Amino acid sequence: MPRAGDERHAHPGVRPAGPDDAAAIGELLHRFNTEFDEPTPGSEQLARRIGRLLEAGDNTVLLAGAGPDGLAVLRFRPSLWSDGLECHVAELYVVPETRRQGLGRALMLAAIDVARRAGADHMDLGTGDADHAARALYESLGFSNRGGTPDGPVNYFYERDL
Amino acid sequence: MPRAGDERHAHPGVRPAGPDDAAAIGELLHRFNTEFDEPTPGSEQLARRIGRLLEAGDNTVLLAGAGPDGLAVLRFRPSLWSDGLECHVAELYVVPETRRQGLGRALMLAAIDVARRAGADHMDLGTGDADHAARALYESLGFSNRGGTPDGPVNYFYERDL
Repeated sequence: MPRAGDERHAHPGVRPAGPDDAAAIGELLHRFNTEFDEPTPGSEQLARRIGRLLEAGDNTVLLAGAGPDGLAVLRFRPSLWSDGLECHVAELYVVPETRRQGLGRALMLAAIDVARRAGADHMDLGTGDADHAARALYESLGFSNRGGTPDGPVNYFYERDL
Repeated sequence: MPRAGDERHAHPGVRPAGPDDAAAIGELLHRFNTEFDEPTPGSEQLARRIGRLLEAGDNTVLLAGAGPDGLAVLRFRPSLWSDGLECHVAELYVVPETRRQGLGRALMLAAIDVARRAGADHMDLGTGDADHAARALYESLGFSNRGGTPDGPVNYFYERDL
């Protein structure tokens, strides 16, 4: 399954995370959910879990900035509709102090490159109506929330706890 | 990873697919995309791929009706936010001839049971604004396309080919 490798220098400021980055990733994910009032199990538990997921190998985390200050979590699996992989952008986050400097865009551009090189032919993600900056970024990168044509019906992301 | 087992008799008319069902599943998926003008690699190629995915074990297909006449494709992976699994409802389809008989609801109720028993604590899916029957079904089963509260901002499903 995909591992980021020689993409290391392709996108300035963005690098693929290794096992040593688990603590920093846990901290970023914890800050993410804290900022948006979502439940979080805490940075240490997140670090342990992300360590296991990176080990398992069908996940890639990209880090941006020196802090690191932002991350993209990519999850891969075999596609149903092609012989390639599909890539789900599970999380995209940049800390408030370093926003509006292009880190989100750099992360997404690197994500698209990494996913293509890993053999993915499709990428998806869910995002909220009120998240204008993220939506503008995704739309500028060719993502669409419309079915069929650019003016087709909107696609919603539905979820529930079990 | 999750396999449907003793749920076989819990939902009348719904059963977990085994390797022998790959051809029927390929046929249903091909009909699905043909009906909605989406690209399809054809039923035989879909059957081969679904056979491999069922073998891999982190996928469950539920079948409804004698034809079979409908299916739900469930894809599992470890959650980032909990020690459980997350379940993505990748496909839900009932052939036109047997619609409005409750097969879709039976499939989704069975899907929720199967996912819980497999250790999933979260389920998600994407669906179109114009698909009123599906959206009503999902909402009646506790799915929400809103963030935070029931009147929070709508969540969109964005995608692009790579």
